[in-house]
Amino acid sequence: MYSDLQLTEDRPVYIQVKDYMKRLMLKGGLQAKQKLPSTRELSTLMKVSRSTVLLAYAELEEEGLIYAVKGKGNYVSSTIEAPEPTTGWQLNWNNRISDYAIQAEQYDLMKHGSGAERGEISFTSIAPDEKLFDLHNVKRAFLDRMSLEGEVLLNYGYAQGYRPLMNYLLRYMENKGVDLSGKDILITNGFTEAFDLVLGALRKQSGKALCENPTHHTAIKNLKLHEFQLTGVDMEPDGLNLQQLERELAASPYDLAYLVPSYHNPTGTVTSPAKRAEIIRLMNQYEVPIIEDGFNEELRYSGSHVSPLIASAGKGNGLVYLGSFSKVLFPGLRVGWVIADAALIDYLESMKRARSIHTSTLDQSLLYQYLSNGNFEKYLKRARTEYKRKYELVVRCLRKHLPMCQISGEGGLHLFVQFPPEYRTRELLAACKVKGVTFTPGDTFYLEQGQGLNTMRLGFSRVSDENIRKGIRIIGETAAQMN
Amino acid sequence: MYSDLQLTEDRPVYIQVKDYMKRLMLKGGLQAKQKLPSTRELSTLMKVSRSTVLLAYAELEEEGLIYAVKGKGNYVSSTIEAPEPTTGWQLNWNNRISDYAIQAEQYDLMKHGSGAERGEISFTSIAPDEKLFDLHNVKRAFLDRMSLEGEVLLNYGYAQGYRPLMNYLLRYMENKGVDLSGKDILITNGFTEAFDLVLGALRKQSGKALCENPTHHTAIKNLKLHEFQLTGVDMEPDGLNLQQLERELAASPYDLAYLVPSYHNPTGTVTSPAKRAEIIRLMNQYEVPIIEDGFNEELRYSGSHVSPLIASAGKGNGLVYLGSFSKVLFPGLRVGWVIADAALIDYLESMKRARSIHTSTLDQSLLYQYLSNGNFEKYLKRARTEYKRKYELVVRCLRKHLPMCQISGEGGLHLFVQFPPEYRTRELLAACKVKGVTFTPGDTFYLEQGQGLNTMRLGFSRVSDENIRKGIRIIGETAAQMN
Repeated sequence: MYSDLQLTEDRPVYIQVKDYMKRLMLKGGLQAKQKLPSTRELSTLMKVSRSTVLLAYAELEEEGLIYAVKGKGNYVSSTIEAPEPTTGWQLNWNNRISDYAIQAEQYDLMKHGSGAERGEISFTSIAPDEKLFDLHNVKRAFLDRMSLEGEVLLNYGYAQGYRPLMNYLLRYMENKGVDLSGKDILITNGFTEAFDLVLGALRKQSGKALCENPTHHTAIKNLKLHEFQLTGVDMEPDGLNLQQLERELAASPYDLAYLVPSYHNPTGTVTSPAKRAEIIRLMNQYEVPIIEDGFNEELRYSGSHVSPLIASAGKGNGLVYLGSFSKVLFPGLRVGWVIADAALIDYLESMKRARSIHTSTLDQSLLYQYLSNGNFEKYLKRARTEYKRKYELVVRCLRKHLPMCQISGEGGLHLFVQFPPEYRTRELLAACKVKGVTFTPGDTFYLEQGQGLNTMRLGFSRVSDENIRKGIRIIGETAAQMN
Repeated sequence: MYSDLQLTEDRPVYIQVKDYMKRLMLKGGLQAKQKLPSTRELSTLMKVSRSTVLLAYAELEEEGLIYAVKGKGNYVSSTIEAPEPTTGWQLNWNNRISDYAIQAEQYDLMKHGSGAERGEISFTSIAPDEKLFDLHNVKRAFLDRMSLEGEVLLNYGYAQGYRPLMNYLLRYMENKGVDLSGKDILITNGFTEAFDLVLGALRKQSGKALCENPTHHTAIKNLKLHEFQLTGVDMEPDGLNLQQLERELAASPYDLAYLVPSYHNPTGTVTSPAKRAEIIRLMNQYEVPIIEDGFNEELRYSGSHVSPLIASAGKGNGLVYLGSFSKVLFPGLRVGWVIADAALIDYLESMKRARSIHTSTLDQSLLYQYLSNGNFEKYLKRARTEYKRKYELVVRCLRKHLPMCQISGEGGLHLFVQFPPEYRTRELLAACKVKGVTFTPGDTFYLEQGQGLNTMRLGFSRVSDENIRKGIRIIGETAAQMN
């Protein structure tokens, strides 16, 4: 006892001594009313200074765990009771799990998907490249804001969001052409919470939802977890197949449509202006609200300027816009936003309060200060240049090594690759993994089994130039050997 | 046009010029193919430097919004289409809101409760006093961590949590006597998300939940939003009425019990060791898992050391512990945690991923660094000393001005006051508000209408000594006049 204290570097020594003694008491190694070693003895046994032991004992006394008897020494409090060494209380949790939780586990691609292993060349991620992060400006933004109102930032904030950031984002959306009259904003923990809140706020009437097919797999998961029955509309190079869309709308009522009009995940498609206008007309006619996912809007490499769909609807209130900087700025800061009709935002705000009180004020205020220091535009320019360069490299490599494939994507952090129909990208993936290369099989993004079997998504943002060249060469060689 | 540019201080001027021009184009003030003013003209009109205009035009060109014609000037891109000035798309959102969202709004006390107004002496808050925050150490923790692994912190993290913080908190709970074998941890956006996740993960069998009566009003709200039918068990000075508890358990099966064994909200009661043991025995016998809310555990002012209930259960797995530093450290950082059986945590992790991907890595890593720099213990000592002083002041004032009342509370940031049965604290509150004093009427915390009408909760953490004296004197005088 005592001499087995193992010190770690990440906490003050006196606290480690205190915790060691506390554990002994709570686990029965020191009994109630038992006398403790003197500070001199303990300092020798533990090989720590006597003042450290004195501090530790003072803390233990403060916590009511020990008491001093003048002239005699320190004793364990009589109120310390070691727990029963074993209790019979064993619940079988597996019988007590809700269907929702079971499904959340089943649909969890981080647990059941094909993740990347260390050392692999992985095209699975569409997270930003952290080497681009301008840490200096992030630090400055933090210190600037902390100096201005540190106490406010660390105490409770408001469910709707941190007001300066809300105002900034409202103006930001206005600059994208959004008419804000009758609309309001809610700050969320990223896109995912925003989507989850909106899905939870909508009354199920038909219980049916429309989406692009393929589409963002997390969105599919969340729509299914909210028990929506999904109808997919095929993607064409300029957006949804409108004939099919109208057929589906005419055939059955829908509670909502989830759409990614710009740099669609996974196909990278940008919906054309003509199709945008027609989509809005149809959704209006059939009274189906659109949830617009604007996650990639900032990362344009070619083609003309894109506004969000919600900008095309003017004063119309049928669109719910979900924004996020996670692909552009820092995903580790969990900040997203919803722009929608003020009546809907009012309900979402109460749901947000019931579920997580509010989004981290620190994240919100740091982001606000970073943006208003003017760093965003500079960073974006640098990031866009770099990603565009990589994007063009990927396109060149694909044309060279996979000449039989169709490529799509005009922006964002990934490209979508379609092989001739007889190819099976799951088999290709298995063969590539042996050679240390991995990507996301495209069928992951389709609604029905058996769809997209000849497709793959290549995320390139975090792959080095050398590995882009090498990885795509390996995929190409492997594909050539297979067919 | 142009001369009405209004500059604000929080963004670089060239970006404000760019945004001004962008808005004009998107709103139709500048039409496709229209020629823009020369940089010299615009700089005169806007009263900004010419280099600012040059920068703004370069950005607009980069975004594809304008194009330059050599020797002629700049033109608006032909792809810019102003939206329809009005669209007929008006959905009636109120018809489309789910029952869940409607209830979340109805139960939202921030919208429908009796909030405090500016200038009032308000005893409604139980948030920490931000004057105690040691901003210097928070800044240092941030800079320390950012220097070590800033890139990692700003990119995506893991749903279960930030590993160093998880390890720290596991050790922290072990030091409270918790046996971690077979258990695991999940980091959440504070207590509220933790509670919401756990409630969502539990299969409804009877659909009934037990809790203390009165209890934390946010917990009541969340239990109701999860459609649990609530049974309350009366609070006595040393915890639950055990006869009543056993009667309820024998009469009907329950899916869960929600308990606050230490510094209960609102009564401040600490459940006695004898009652703790008996509660665990009963819950084990009737197979009812306990969700333990440990929110206030660190703020002990008198009485003996308290361990969490989960420590008394040893290796037993029937307890789900929800922890938070929001009342002790910084609520603006949204960080809480769940300690429970590893099988349950596995499901909770997938739910967390589906709902918000993960908790802010910045918040988690800042908290971790702050803790492991050894700041927590020092801060806690200072905070506890200050809160204890205020707590004793409140007790003295209550004894003096409200001698007819019973007071309870041995720790935390509030006291609970029970008037003789004939008093009505809602009426007292109305009369006090006129005099600029406000508190939380105790009936807010009771399950049934008509209960706790003669009680109030006094949060004192953010009230100055002077206002504590004045506020309680006014409450006392007003009460004396009313009865």
